This record gives sequence, C-alpha cells and structure tokens, in this order.
Amino acid sequence: MMPPVVRTVLVVACACALLATAAQTQVPPRATWVEPYRETAARLMQTATGDQFAWRRLAELTDTFGHRLSGSENLERAIAWAAEAMRRDGFENVRTEPVMVPRWVRGRESADIVFPPQHAIAMLGLGGSIATPPGGIEAEVVVVGAFEELRTRGADIRGRIVLFNAPFTTYSDTVAYRTGGARAASQLGAVATLIRAVGPTGLRTPHTGSVQYGQGIPPIPAASISAEDADRIARLTARGARVRVRLTMEARTEPDAESANVVGELRGRERPEEIVLLGGHFDSWDVGTGASDDAVGCIITWEAARLMMKLGIRPRRTVRIVLFTNEENGLRGATAYAAKHAAHAANHVFALEADSGVFDPASLGFSGSAAARNIVRDIGSLLAPLGLSEIVAGGGGADIGPIAQAGNAPMMAYLGNPGRYFTIHHTHADTVERIAPEEVSKAAAAIAVMAYVIAEMPERLPR
Amino acid sequence: MMPPVVRTVLVVACACALLATAAQTQVPPRATWVEPYRETAARLMQTATGDQFAWRRLAELTDTFGHRLSGSENLERAIAWAAEAMRRDGFENVRTEPVMVPRWVRGRESADIVFPPQHAIAMLGLGGSIATPPGGIEAEVVVVGAFEELRTRGADIRGRIVLFNAPFTTYSDTVAYRTGGARAASQLGAVATLIRAVGPTGLRTPHTGSVQYGQGIPPIPAASISAEDADRIARLTARGARVRVRLTMEARTEPDAESANVVGELRGRERPEEIVLLGGHFDSWDVGTGASDDAVGCIITWEAARLMMKLGIRPRRTVRIVLFTNEENGLRGATAYAAKHAAHAANHVFALEADSGVFDPASLGFSGSAAARNIVRDIGSLLAPLGLSEIVAGGGGADIGPIAQAGNAPMMAYLGNPGRYFTIHHTHADTVERIAPEEVSKAAAAIAVMAYVIAEMPERLPR
Repeated sequence: MMPPVVRTVLVVACACALLATAAQTQVPPRATWVEPYRETAARLMQTATGDQFAWRRLAELTDTFGHRLSGSENLERAIAWAAEAMRRDGFENVRTEPVMVPRWVRGRESADIVFPPQHAIAMLGLGGSIATPPGGIEAEVVVVGAFEELRTRGADIRGRIVLFNAPFTTYSDTVAYRTGGARAASQLGAVATLIRAVGPTGLRTPHTGSVQYGQGIPPIPAASISAEDADRIARLTARGARVRVRLTMEARTEPDAESANVVGELRGRERPEEIVLLGGHFDSWDVGTGASDDAVGCIITWEAARLMMKLGIRPRRTVRIVLFTNEENGLRGATAYAAKHAAHAANHVFALEADSGVFDPASLGFSGSAAARNIVRDIGSLLAPLGLSEIVAGGGGADIGPIAQAGNAPMMAYLGNPGRYFTIHHTHADTVERIAPEEVSKAAAAIAVMAYVIAEMPERLPR
Repeated sequence: MMPPVVRTVLVVACACALLATAAQTQVPPRATWVEPYRETAARLMQTATGDQFAWRRLAELTDTFGHRLSGSENLERAIAWAAEAMRRDGFENVRTEPVMVPRWVRGRESADIVFPPQHAIAMLGLGGSIATPPGGIEAEVVVVGAFEELRTRGADIRGRIVLFNAPFTTYSDTVAYRTGGARAASQLGAVATLIRAVGPTGLRTPHTGSVQYGQGIPPIPAASISAEDADRIARLTARGARVRVRLTMEARTEPDAESANVVGELRGRERPEEIVLLGGHFDSWDVGTGASDDAVGCIITWEAARLMMKLGIRPRRTVRIVLFTNEENGLRGATAYAAKHAAHAANHVFALEADSGVFDPASLGFSGSAAARNIVRDIGSLLAPLGLSEIVAGGGGADIGPIAQAGNAPMMAYLGNPGRYFTIHHTHADTVERIAPEEVSKAAAAIAVMAYVIAEMPERLPR
C-alpha cells in the first residue's frame, strides 16, 4: 500500500506557504511518497509549457475540419486525421472503434418578430428539434420566467409560442428549460417554444444544445434565442404589445450514420492490462468550431500521453486515450466503449475526462473513495508550479461515466472556469481564439503528471 | 465679456482636490463666474440621475422600431414616433424637415469556406456594396495584412478574393480597409473583397459599415467577416492550404426615399434666434437595434432639453434638438439641415453631437477658440459630481459639422469609452442591453448642464 503520509511535521511549512500564497485557498501538505515522481513530473510540466504544440494542434484540427456534428463528413474526416496523427506520434494500438450515431441536420432556420416591427431574432434551433411546416409557424408569444409561471398561465398557452426567459444562473439549473421546455409547453397546447440562451449574456449570442421530447407528448419545434432578443420580447410584452413571432426551421433527423471512437495507447511496461483512461469527446455541435467543447479536451488528454512518449517515459500501466464520438446528441460513443470493453471494465484503474474547457482559473475535480482521494491529493501537490495543487470534489464526465461505473473506477475531470466556458458553449463563438496557448499547455501538463503517477505507482489506485 | 477667472487663490484648494481624487487626471480650478449656475446645474444633474426615464425611452425606441436604416419603414415609423413624443414632452416648433435619402437593401447574403472544408463564415455585407451574381462568386482567397502587402502581391490578386486581415488598432486607422479595400483590390483585378471586422474581437462578430468605390474602378462585392474567421483563413493559408470561399450577396441600391430630420425646440426667452444645437443621428445600420449608434445620442440630447423643461427652466437662448437622418450612408440629413438653415448658420452659437456612445469612462471633447475653450472648461467644473469636469480636445460630429462650419460655431462631442463602443459598433450586438441606465443619465445630465449654461449666460460663447 501507499507509504503513510507524515502530516504533523509539515504543519509549520504549510502555514508559511499559506501566508505566501494568500490568493490560493489551500496548499496541500507535501507527501513524501510522491517525491520519487517529482523530477519526472517537473520535466513533463516543463516540456508541456515549453512550446505551444498542443494549441497549434487544436488550431489545426478546428481550422481544418470546423465543427463536427455526429453524422457529418467533417467529423469523419477529423476522426481519420486524428487516428493518423496518433500513429505518427508513436501511439500503439491506434484504432477506430465503430459506433452508429444519430444524424440530425439543422437545415435553414430563422425566427423573426413580425409585430412590432418586422425584425430578425438571433436564434439557433435546438438539436433534435422537429421542423416547422415549410412556411413556418406564426403566433403570439407568451413570455414566462420559469416552469411555475407556465403552469399559472395554462389558459394562455394554447396556440401560442412560449418563450422561456429564465435568466442564466448555473448550467445545471438553467439547462432544464432547453431540455424540458418544449415538453412542458406542448402539454399545454403551445405550437412552438423559444428559450433564452443557456449561458451568460454574450454579444447577441444564441446557444444550441439538445431538446428532449416526452413520450406521448406531441413534439413541437424548439429554438434558442439570444438573451437580448428574449429581453426585448419580454419588455415589449410588459409594455402591453402582443408580440408575434414567425419561426421557420427545416430541421430533420436522418438515418443513423457510421462514426467511431478513436483509441490510442501508450502500453504499460509491467501491467499493460491495467488502464489509465484519458479522453474527451471529438464531436461537437454544428456551430463555431467546437474548440472549447470539446476539441481542447481531446487535445490535452492526447497531449498528456504524447508528452510521456516524447520524454521516453513508459509507465507501469497502460495510458489509453479515447476520443469519444457523439457525446452531444446521443452518448453513443460512451455507450459503445463501455459495451465493447465490458469484460475489462474492472481493469480501468482511473478515468479522466476533459469536457469543461481549460479556461483559467481551472481546477481538477475528483470522485472516488477516501483512500483514492488522499493519494490523488498527494499527487496534486506535484502540480503546485501550475497553481493546480488543490483537488476539488466532483470528477467524472459523460463519456467516461459508463465504463467507470461498470469498473467502479475513480474519476477525475479537468474543470475550466465555468463563466468563460458557458459564455461560448454551443455557440458560433466557440473557436480557438477564445483559448490561450498557456491554458492548453497547463492543462496538458497537469493531466500528464496525474496520469503518469497513477500509471506508474506500484499499487493501483484504490477503488 | 466673461468675468475674469481668479486662478491664483484656488491653487491650494485645487491641490487638495487633486489629492482627494487621485483617479482623475486633473481637477479644473473653480471659476467664480459659473457660481450663479451651480444650483440649477445641481438640480439638472439630480433630476437626470434620479430615475431611468432616458434609458427607458431608449429601450422603448429600440425595442419598438429596431434598426433604422435610411429608406426603411422602421426609420420612418421611428421618426413619426419621435416627433409625436417631442410634442407630448412639450417641445416647441416640433417638425420633421424632409430629406431624400439613399436606400440600400442588404438582401440575403452568405460567405462560406468551401475548401477546406465547407464551413459558414460569420459575415455582413458592407453598406453600399453591389451584389454578386446570383450563384455567388467562388475564388481562392489571398490574405494580406495591409495595403502595402496588397501591392507586393499584385500578380496574385487577379481573379481572387482579397481578405484584408488588418488587426484592429483605432477606428480611424483601421476603417480605411472597410472604405477603401474594395477599390484597392479591384484595381489589381480582384473579384471580391473581405475585410476583417473593424473593431475589437467580439464573439464571432462581423461589423458592417460603408464601402466606397472609386470613380473609374469597377466596383466589386465587399463584406466584413469576423476576426475569428479572418484569422482562421490566415492560419489555413499560412499552413499552405489554398482556401476557397464562396461569397453570395443580393445587395442592391434602390431609388432615393423620403426621410426627415426631426427638430424640436425649447425657445429662448430673450434671444430665441440664437441657437444651442444638440443632437445625434436617428438612422442606424440594419443590424442590432442601433442603440449605441446612435439612438442613445439622440435620446441623451433630447433628454437634456426635456430636463430643462421638466424643471421649468427656459434659458436666454433657444435649445434646439435635431435628430439627423442618414448619417450612416450618405450624411444627407446633415447636408440638408445646413442647406435649409444656411441663412441662420451664424446664429448657431454652439453645437454638440453625441455619436460616440455613452460608455464609461466617458468625456466631453471640445473644438473652438481658446476663449471659448476657457469658458467651456469653467462650465465643466460644474460637472465634477459626474466625474466629467475635464474637457478634452476634439469636439464635433459628422452631423453638426456642416452647419457648425458654415456658422463657425464651437463644437462639442460626448465621447464614450471607445473600446466598448467599437466592440459593438455596426454589429448585431448593438442593443440596449449593452448600455447601463446610469451611463445614459450621466450623459444627459452633463449635456443638460453644458447646454443650459451656454444658452443662459449673458454673452454668447465666442467663436
């Protein structure tokens, strides 16, 4: 088992460090068992932050292939490119593991205030939405601030377009209107639904994302509109205007298409069957170039393993990179990976997903047993040069969830600043310009050190 | 003439004030001649900042009528509303002075990278641009950073689309590519031109504005693309890709249309023929709601006079509000006003234009003789409660220019923070959400005080 950590002798040093770094919330004590890994960790961090290789790869990926919605040619070309690039990097067992994915096609779409006056709305149809009739749907808008208000307005809803104008608080709270708004409005007879964009107010920036229809409830067209357009309609309505909107969407769902998870490995030198899984999702919505969500998550996890190879490091266990397909509108890549590797689920000793951006101030989140948490916290102490030594509660990710659950594996997440992340999340503005090269290098460095120690240490990370 | 200012006795007080307000660059000395105006100035400022009337009027205008391009129904409806609202406010001699204005219609438009891969560009055609042929123009893109580089690439330009990718520095420097890029590229045989948006990088935000074709030079279609799209094409090209773009624009120029300047007055009690002119332009580009450019300039100058009326103040001279039409693509409103009022040009004792937003930190700029500047600086000392006491060099505006030049009138400008102003200038994001009620109130208060003292003081402001 792990060497015991002698914490008592470190109290004075820790207090001094605390005084010296008032901006950080906590400086973990130094654990002696991680000392043998310190020099290699330092080399990984120096190499990662010594150039902008990872950012340039991110730019090449997003510039060359653009957005990568499941079922699109862009995604399939990007997948082929990634597999080839991994082989060129020297990864082992590089393969694409086939997955059938949904294929939703946006088509042309628009929303206009038609009274008062005719004026285009900044909008994006929600992924999975049905189309309107070819001429669009025109109806008066009913503005509600929350689900509760919808219910009190029940008699006003039939035949109307419902606008959910819920101010953005947190993603997990506010996304309920995107996923469930259409269902709730349809139950009361609405003909379509608009939701205020789920994110901080940008620059007239709508945010797409999935809508979920309910069984036995008629689906209705659903779109996101910018915060500014939502507020404008709300103000007009509050002044007594009966605002009419025409919504026109050609959205359609086509038959499932072939896609794949991309897998590459740095095989373990002693316990190759034990897997340290790192990854993100390679698909994106069909707006922007999906740079932050989630090309960068793929690039930094990939880069973490590439850094080890570049420095000639071959850890005891296998480091496996998985670029999952179809996270955004189906999670078929995650499901397929868990199914295909079910027999080896218990061999996954650790799984890390990067799907929250890399915006500073970033942190590492962890979910696992107390014993595992103590070890991970000790490893975190090696990340002090990156300002990432504190490990916060809550790790995991949509893609690693199924296999980690099957194998009861501890999970980690790289967590970027949510304010910056959600400002561009699922928008046209999710491009590589938003992301600083230093943020990419830092994230890759942190993941490299964490993965290296977990893959190298004598005992596997406890469940 | 104006009482002499006894500066020497104020040195100590001034030094103390400087210590107390380290954030300001300079605290002007207190001029005794303005003391009789101090109480009324204070009441104007308190009334302006005591509610959000002006912001609410700005929201009502921009919500109800949206953008207001010359020749559009939106603009004409907004003009009728403004004249009616001025009458309801109690303004005198309210009238619309007819002006024929150009009518440019954007039509549908798009730009797409077609290799590599197919990907939509965030774009806005430039005002005044000609259309492409119905199927669009597809050509390889040549990226240049500046006019000088265009000339060195002369042989590569024929048959290509030129992208001017000049980083935004200041508006006056960078706008040269928007106005003159098409002309320069056409002379070398380019088939169309794209310019990097003229403004700080937003969230994939293109900026429209006028293009100017040259006499004897074939006009070519011209559009603005977001900074992110420009950088993406530049990176792709730098990696060796031969980027192809298809540009499709339906833009057309229709026959001139009827429009009008809106004029309203607070007639002077002693010298009604002497005019203190305040205004902004009421037209906008056909994107966003033209809230900052320049509905807010109209609202704050209008509000300045309304505040005087509300407090029962009737100054010695006439305060005239002019909401000019067609500043953006023709300046016909300014020209018509100067022509119509040419015989009374010399009666314009002062002209203030607000067409630079109201974003903090704001300032007042002045152009006029040294004698006038001294007086205006003294009046500025009354604005200390607003943090606006310093008067910077450089006043004026496109709309007041012709009449002020004809009458040799001193000119002032209300100058908002240019960084925030140009981030949304001529974009879909120019909406009332960008502007804080406090910024509107403060601007109206400052203009009210300045106009009141200049309209009230015994002698007219010297030329």
